[in-house]
Amino acid sequence: MSNPIFAGIDLGGTNAKVALYDEQMQQIGEKRAPSRSTESADVILENLANLLNRLLRETGTDRADLAAMGIGVPGLMDVHAGISHYLANFPQWRDVPVVQWFEKRLGIPVVLDNDVRMNTYGEWYEGAAKGVQNAILLTLGTGVGAGIILQGQMLYGTTDSAGELGHMSIDPNGRPCNCGNIGCWERYVSATGLIQTAQEAIAKAPTSVLAKWQADGQPLTGKMVSLAYDKGDAVAHEVMDQTGVWLGVGLVSIINVFNPQRIIIGGGMAAAGQRLLAPAQAYIQAHALRQPLGAVKIVEAQLGDSAGMVGAAVRGRSKWEKNNAE
Amino acid sequence: MSNPIFAGIDLGGTNAKVALYDEQMQQIGEKRAPSRSTESADVILENLANLLNRLLRETGTDRADLAAMGIGVPGLMDVHAGISHYLANFPQWRDVPVVQWFEKRLGIPVVLDNDVRMNTYGEWYEGAAKGVQNAILLTLGTGVGAGIILQGQMLYGTTDSAGELGHMSIDPNGRPCNCGNIGCWERYVSATGLIQTAQEAIAKAPTSVLAKWQADGQPLTGKMVSLAYDKGDAVAHEVMDQTGVWLGVGLVSIINVFNPQRIIIGGGMAAAGQRLLAPAQAYIQAHALRQPLGAVKIVEAQLGDSAGMVGAAVRGRSKWEKNNAE
Repeated sequence: MSNPIFAGIDLGGTNAKVALYDEQMQQIGEKRAPSRSTESADVILENLANLLNRLLRETGTDRADLAAMGIGVPGLMDVHAGISHYLANFPQWRDVPVVQWFEKRLGIPVVLDNDVRMNTYGEWYEGAAKGVQNAILLTLGTGVGAGIILQGQMLYGTTDSAGELGHMSIDPNGRPCNCGNIGCWERYVSATGLIQTAQEAIAKAPTSVLAKWQADGQPLTGKMVSLAYDKGDAVAHEVMDQTGVWLGVGLVSIINVFNPQRIIIGGGMAAAGQRLLAPAQAYIQAHALRQPLGAVKIVEAQLGDSAGMVGAAVRGRSKWEKNNAE
Repeated sequence: MSNPIFAGIDLGGTNAKVALYDEQMQQIGEKRAPSRSTESADVILENLANLLNRLLRETGTDRADLAAMGIGVPGLMDVHAGISHYLANFPQWRDVPVVQWFEKRLGIPVVLDNDVRMNTYGEWYEGAAKGVQNAILLTLGTGVGAGIILQGQMLYGTTDSAGELGHMSIDPNGRPCNCGNIGCWERYVSATGLIQTAQEAIAKAPTSVLAKWQADGQPLTGKMVSLAYDKGDAVAHEVMDQTGVWLGVGLVSIINVFNPQRIIIGGGMAAAGQRLLAPAQAYIQAHALRQPLGAVKIVEAQLGDSAGMVGAAVRGRSKWEKNNAE
């Protein structure tokens, strides 16, 4: 194959995304469509295969050049066996042999992994962690996702479930978490956590512009907290500063435990930028161990919501290279 | 060399220990002596070399059979360069080229690493983590030490300072730590933390047998808390239960983040046994994520205070094997 092409699929709870890349990971094209999460697994997989076929056609890509594919999905899985056990919000999805299904359909090597690890592979090979041997990606969204690269290896753990930094407790008397733990970091530094903090602050300070917006019937979002912050609203500043401190608390533990070279902040909350990162940085400077503090840089993610597709394609390429080398 | 012998040295703040092992890591003999920590680095190193020589003589070991050596020391170091930068309680010790010194003296391969990693290598090759690819050793003593084995590799991080699980914060409004952080796990689950918890409890319950012992002029120790616990003292039970819960809080984070197969508890506090581990286990069962919880066993360390010497000898053997293979 003179011109191998790699496909990356990112299957989310709402939307599915697929993109094609050349061997240097230059994007050839991408398409998005609803995930159809309430349908049967076969319908969902057919839908993805059709999306990929349409993208091949629209980009004028020769089907014979498609060399390998990767797919990232959320939830519990057996990475080695290529089986996705369970996806939240996909009620009919159970123990789906994703790799086998696509390999049979496409006749090419296919790799499955969880969505945040695929994001991390993307940032590692093509984004903010390029060339780095010890890096941690945090995606601060509705929840907190994390991918951990240590000594040049992605961390999987004993049963592929390593990396749940969002479920470190930062306060054993703090907010209860859906996971069954108490005071999980995710309850404070996700968008959900920020909004809870904002609502608690509004209850005590009804004159805040945030209180007014909420009274006007607008459901609170992280973006609204940033907007109110930029208007100089004191409650928004208090909420963002406190959230930044909580972000710092977890980052200090991460720095002390992992001694990483790079920590990459992604996800929707990253849009808060320095409003959130400045108080986190101040906390880290004051509280982290000196030696690992001197070794780490905290940066924003570079690939946005393409990271998962890039990472999936990178993993497909790795499997293809490995097969070719054998 | 028909019968290679490996030396392991464990240089602690108070005592130095050296032992000899055959290729199967059966101990041939060991010796202990004061570390002479206030002397110059040369005196300290000569002292260790003399201790090793006496042990060779006393065990009738042919000096020519000594194939390699490992040495574990506390503090900051450059493992790759074999330089120990700084040892707490060794005022004249600064940037000491330990590996070079011993290699020149003995003419054999020498490996330096920090004490808790050497302990971890010992438990990994010959003790409670034998054959395990994902394991974490916690030594609960005056402080908390940790060695982290992930996917068959010891974790070092970017500047060899990874592994400080004792300096994860479990409460950002909690006890201040000497390290500059707040609420470090070490402040709660080390012997020092247990004694602080006991003293706070005694202040509120002066009828406790612990209060009586302290009033009699005995400084509180972890062992005394265990003794009072066994006598049914309510305060000792409260203190041990609370410390067990705090141990559980950190263990849940470790389980969720690392998805280890084995967590090994060592150090002086391990002597508290089920008094401490039972409440920790109860907390973990209630709060850890189900998938990694199902994969992990929490066990006691097997090698006691020999682990550091075993691990050092194991590291020496690895370097010797690697040199022979080249």
